[in-house]
Amino acid sequence: MRPLVFTVALEATAPSLHDNTGDIDRLKKAVSAAGGIAVQIPLRRMGPIAANFRQAGFRGVAVINDLPAGAVLVDFLAEQPSVLPAMALDLGTTHLEASLINLLDGRVLASGNRENSQIEFGADILTRIHYAGKGNGLRRLHEAVVGAINGLAADLADKAGEKREHIRALSVSGNTTMVHLLLQLDPYHLCREPYIPLVNAPDPFAAAEIGLALHGAAPVWVMPSIGSYFGGDLISGIVASGLDQQEETCMLIDVGTNAEVVVGNREWLIACAGAAGPALEGGVARMGMRAGPGAIEHVEIDPLTLELRCRTIDGGKARGICGSGIIDLVACLYLARIIDIRGKFRPERCPERFVDTPQGAGFVVVAAEEAANGEPVVLGQVDLDAMMRSKAAMYSILTTLINQVGLEFADLHRIYVAGAFGRHIDPRRAITLGMLPDLPLTTFQPVGNSSLAGAELALLDRGDRERCLGLINKITYLELNVNQEFMIRFSGSRFIPHTDTSLFPSVPVFD
Amino acid sequence: MRPLVFTVALEATAPSLHDNTGDIDRLKKAVSAAGGIAVQIPLRRMGPIAANFRQAGFRGVAVINDLPAGAVLVDFLAEQPSVLPAMALDLGTTHLEASLINLLDGRVLASGNRENSQIEFGADILTRIHYAGKGNGLRRLHEAVVGAINGLAADLADKAGEKREHIRALSVSGNTTMVHLLLQLDPYHLCREPYIPLVNAPDPFAAAEIGLALHGAAPVWVMPSIGSYFGGDLISGIVASGLDQQEETCMLIDVGTNAEVVVGNREWLIACAGAAGPALEGGVARMGMRAGPGAIEHVEIDPLTLELRCRTIDGGKARGICGSGIIDLVACLYLARIIDIRGKFRPERCPERFVDTPQGAGFVVVAAEEAANGEPVVLGQVDLDAMMRSKAAMYSILTTLINQVGLEFADLHRIYVAGAFGRHIDPRRAITLGMLPDLPLTTFQPVGNSSLAGAELALLDRGDRERCLGLINKITYLELNVNQEFMIRFSGSRFIPHTDTSLFPSVPVFD
Repeated sequence: MRPLVFTVALEATAPSLHDNTGDIDRLKKAVSAAGGIAVQIPLRRMGPIAANFRQAGFRGVAVINDLPAGAVLVDFLAEQPSVLPAMALDLGTTHLEASLINLLDGRVLASGNRENSQIEFGADILTRIHYAGKGNGLRRLHEAVVGAINGLAADLADKAGEKREHIRALSVSGNTTMVHLLLQLDPYHLCREPYIPLVNAPDPFAAAEIGLALHGAAPVWVMPSIGSYFGGDLISGIVASGLDQQEETCMLIDVGTNAEVVVGNREWLIACAGAAGPALEGGVARMGMRAGPGAIEHVEIDPLTLELRCRTIDGGKARGICGSGIIDLVACLYLARIIDIRGKFRPERCPERFVDTPQGAGFVVVAAEEAANGEPVVLGQVDLDAMMRSKAAMYSILTTLINQVGLEFADLHRIYVAGAFGRHIDPRRAITLGMLPDLPLTTFQPVGNSSLAGAELALLDRGDRERCLGLINKITYLELNVNQEFMIRFSGSRFIPHTDTSLFPSVPVFD
Repeated sequence: MRPLVFTVALEATAPSLHDNTGDIDRLKKAVSAAGGIAVQIPLRRMGPIAANFRQAGFRGVAVINDLPAGAVLVDFLAEQPSVLPAMALDLGTTHLEASLINLLDGRVLASGNRENSQIEFGADILTRIHYAGKGNGLRRLHEAVVGAINGLAADLADKAGEKREHIRALSVSGNTTMVHLLLQLDPYHLCREPYIPLVNAPDPFAAAEIGLALHGAAPVWVMPSIGSYFGGDLISGIVASGLDQQEETCMLIDVGTNAEVVVGNREWLIACAGAAGPALEGGVARMGMRAGPGAIEHVEIDPLTLELRCRTIDGGKARGICGSGIIDLVACLYLARIIDIRGKFRPERCPERFVDTPQGAGFVVVAAEEAANGEPVVLGQVDLDAMMRSKAAMYSILTTLINQVGLEFADLHRIYVAGAFGRHIDPRRAITLGMLPDLPLTTFQPVGNSSLAGAELALLDRGDRERCLGLINKITYLELNVNQEFMIRFSGSRFIPHTDTSLFPSVPVFD
């Protein structure tokens, strides 16, 4: 295990007339003798390091950054510290999630999250890319997210009883656009055919170079991406799930703004990404919201009495409905025959639950008097149509990919489902909709915030950092934007569960 | 040949939907394919480099810094440039001497020199070390020399028709104290037993880090030192003379503020340094001056008529006397029997050439009416005594060193004499004084400013840079400050030519 920053305890012989080696050269020799490591020492650190080394009597502990270009000695301490804090960051489009890790033992010292302050300049990736192209937009986006990270770093340090300036390293896992904006790199080509990032695998740099107020010598390690639509967050998912190390072929599904899917094993990996997410993230439905307080995450409808019960994430009154809630709701509406196989409302089934809205008939999930802010939670046909497109896109992505490698879904040993989607979704409901393949429920395994988990792994071991960098050359990327097969499959998937009902034997077929 | 900065011409395949490699990653792959080199690209250079690479149609020329930690790609040009200017600097205590080199062909584009602006804070090394310890003295010394280098860089660029900001690299060769002050490193321990530098071999750093106004990505490569009294300037002398590569055993003598001496061959090298210089640099004699306009560099005295003729460096009227002039003068005074073997004046030999001074009788070298500023050039007994100590120190250093390795002077194939001292001195006169050993005159070979020559070699080839770094581990350093033998030899050398006249068969002995 070689963390991004590590220590080497050493003892050098003291200088004398017979050994006039310079302080810094003496220290380098001692590090080499104690740890077998050749180190560089940056100009600005030489003075303080030499002073500490002398003051400590030419013995103590060297603090070393493990970088691809070699080891860099950045500090010298008289005593072995008990904590060497470093921050792992999941850099999301809407939220940042982070943990503070003790690099000496891998223990989590604190966890926390913040909103991505870039939201004030645009809720989604495309808006931000366009904003970046105007005036000093790129700089403002950059500064906004750096400010949010600095704030989150302070939160974590407070919780752990540390100081932010003592955080020795940062690892970042995020989508390709978020990484470009963090590094203040022009994202212009990311959203324009042929969708080329400015950089996939940036070399590590100093946190101070981008205005991060961590330890002055803290390096930033960025999880590499594969393309504009396949970011470091998914590389994190692969290493966190172990997809790339298993003998059995498995699949990883990460639904954020896009649906990103990887299938493979330790021999090969193939991946693709497509726009399937908005409805699932709660970003399309009018009452849609992110999984959070007041969000309906679970719905049941009795097919006979049509009684509806729902549960919010915090158990409080409903304010809206999140991705997993919409999947539950639509699946139940289908099983209760309140929508048909084309995903169209059948208001005649229970007219009392429908209201007129400016966009047509809407299904009342929670009535105004029971909702959090006196407004009913209503699912409109527009929302339903978006949901149908999302589920069709998702299933088409999965089938196109699996077909590409000549496999069938039954050949998959596991399907890892990442993120909030994986944590909250009920695979049974997603199968009913024809969104996920009709496999035994034990096949589906949530992997939590695997973007953050990957960033943590990268902090803790060089082997995993090299593994991540190796992955970008190992993964075959399938571009769906120009894939004819995908478009054909998409059409066939716009029914519940599918035009080919034999694909979903466990789902009841009506009509 | 791998210069400190070099270019690689390349052509990459253009991006497409089937090849979504990022711009920076694409460039790295192309460099690897064209030059077999893995490069890093610093964060701040990524944006402009990617933009240039795109604009040039993914073909052109990568500009790469060759650093010990690996190659760093710092620029991308559409066309192969004809000139890649870099600056080699001899960082002297009193003067800076520099050349501008085209790294593409090794040609010298311009040469120049400037005073070391640190002189206003102290003429010699010790004064500056003390000054550095007071308040912001170190910073002021640092800024003074950086300002002088920036000025000199502008001079060179002007002469060569280039811009200072286009200078792509700097190599520096100087004594250990000058290097510490340039790097703004505390020189406190350099002059205090056991005389330990803060650093001998600093890792390369960016010119901008110390305030140098060269190209934004220019690296600074510093010639390593061996100890406080054995600086990078002497390492330069070794590589410039080739002392470390020859089968025959040779010696290198560099007389600056100190006398630094190396003896050896391609198998072994031993070195020492001692205070022998001041008188020889023109720093002790009251009328002493650096070799420059108005400095007497050559003196003849007819032993019979006692007629004295002298020549200044520029052929103009005399203002003072430089090191080689003093050696000539004292040797002639001895041969004319105007001083005795103990180096004491014998005014009775030519009373008309002596005047009374506040320090006693003084020998008039140039009368007031023939001198440049109406003041006579006079050599006093005090000056003479200093000269005698210097020459005794020099010979003692040489004999102590040669004795240390069990050799005799006759075993030396060559004696390289560096610097202005080597350029102007007449070895015959130095032998007369007993300062240099009594060897055939062809043994002595001036090597010019070998400090600058070494810096130039370092700019042009990685092999030579590695050779320099290797030298600091190859050279055995003999500390004279605690050497008993040296003190005994010093006493025996305070006669002209020596107490043991058999050592100098070519020198006439009087009395």
